[in-house]
Amino acid sequence: MIRRLAIVGLGLLGGSVAKAARAESLALEIVGIGRDLARLEPALGVGAVDRITTDLREGLAGADMVVLATPVATLERQMAAVWEAAPPQALITDVGSTKAAIVRVAESLSARKPLDFVGSHPMAGSNLSGFAVSRADLFRGATIILTPTDRTARDAVKRVTEFWEAAGGRVVTMDPATHDRAVAAVSHLPHLVADALVDAVVRMDPQFLEVAGRGFKDTTRIAASSPEVWREIFEENREALAEAVAAFRAALGDLESVLRSGNRDRIESELERIRKIRAVLG
Amino acid sequence: MIRRLAIVGLGLLGGSVAKAARAESLALEIVGIGRDLARLEPALGVGAVDRITTDLREGLAGADMVVLATPVATLERQMAAVWEAAPPQALITDVGSTKAAIVRVAESLSARKPLDFVGSHPMAGSNLSGFAVSRADLFRGATIILTPTDRTARDAVKRVTEFWEAAGGRVVTMDPATHDRAVAAVSHLPHLVADALVDAVVRMDPQFLEVAGRGFKDTTRIAASSPEVWREIFEENREALAEAVAAFRAALGDLESVLRSGNRDRIESELERIRKIRAVLG
Repeated sequence: MIRRLAIVGLGLLGGSVAKAARAESLALEIVGIGRDLARLEPALGVGAVDRITTDLREGLAGADMVVLATPVATLERQMAAVWEAAPPQALITDVGSTKAAIVRVAESLSARKPLDFVGSHPMAGSNLSGFAVSRADLFRGATIILTPTDRTARDAVKRVTEFWEAAGGRVVTMDPATHDRAVAAVSHLPHLVADALVDAVVRMDPQFLEVAGRGFKDTTRIAASSPEVWREIFEENREALAEAVAAFRAALGDLESVLRSGNRDRIESELERIRKIRAVLG
Repeated sequence: MIRRLAIVGLGLLGGSVAKAARAESLALEIVGIGRDLARLEPALGVGAVDRITTDLREGLAGADMVVLATPVATLERQMAAVWEAAPPQALITDVGSTKAAIVRVAESLSARKPLDFVGSHPMAGSNLSGFAVSRADLFRGATIILTPTDRTARDAVKRVTEFWEAAGGRVVTMDPATHDRAVAAVSHLPHLVADALVDAVVRMDPQFLEVAGRGFKDTTRIAASSPEVWREIFEENREALAEAVAAFRAALGDLESVLRSGNRDRIESELERIRKIRAVLG
């Protein structure tokens, strides 16, 4: 049981952490920290948190668990102040969607002031954002990637794992660099491709969008996400994303040559190979 | 009211036409025609059709409306026989997902034996196929594209429009070539891109699929479709698809250079432009 859970940033993810912790009675007290009191008040109003503050030091005082849930770029800038304000017993995790840089900063800060940190990435985003769309069940069935390194305390990994599992998540672990390549492949690349798909249709004829069916809507849903959040993610994960785009271009080019070959068996067996891989995901 | 509705092919689309016509009482009698009696029997068993036959001539006899619902390549091969067997009063439509070639064949056949034909494309596919997944409400809310030309009788367009609207569809019309470009953009390109996305992840590391979340699943759902159906569609719509892929490559390349610029305002305004376009689709 957590005595005092402090959450920095009460948007979709931070708000959902608060609501899940409340719903599952994971913490005796939940403190919400943000820059703008007016934007924190709804969380207090619905009872998702017990206290709100814009003062990081006041918010982190006495916390035994801290969840950092601001956008990735903000988070990196914030971490030095978090390390300064957090009490020595605090276990810190985050919800950032890239991990190598964040873990690097955390480990460099911990070299001077040792605090337990485990990077987390709940794969439970949405094209919507803000506390208004947060939900106690956001993490139910979601994959949560933890990115411990050889400098991470085993017990800290265990406690963060238990936290996310109690919130309904399925926890897997990866080293930070592998995490960044994996999410570049299954999250950031699809987003960039969805953006390009929407733009490709506009380039051909914007009126074609009028006949877009479920397939197009499914394929491009993530293109309707917050530009600010995604600009940061694309920037943060630039290198791994470039690798993923290169793999995608190669895959698309090869598919095109298979189609151009006109060889029915070859075309169908290539489509079938891909269909099988996709089908197992459900 | 249709006296005798003949449907050639009782898969997802043909089966759904039968069930919708039954549910909405659009025809006094519904006849199912296919190559394999055993595969037609379930439709008879659930009462979606009144009669089944493997004989095209017998099935089309006395029909005042005919819906051709076999896969596009089969359909083109079949049309000469349909024109030969269909009675002079028959109004013929189809559900093929490409239209220029089918309309060309229909008009060339009608030059010798004039029959009313209106090309239809219900944008109501699925990654699943077969009568077992057909539904009376498949067309409810779906866009149905009709592709009349200056040789199509106005009254035939009116009757086919009424038919699809009675089945719950939203009818729009386009000339056949524009239709093929539109579906290349909003359906065939997204499918090819989804295939390439799945393959790109496999090329990077197949284990990355284990952390694929809702975004990846949405974006690649259509990659889990029938290879045979899609091989035919890709082949049929080769030219328009090539144009769409070129537009997509250009869009992806331009997005990448915007990201590389590192100019935050420019990146966010480009993502915002695309977000807005996508958001109106719901």
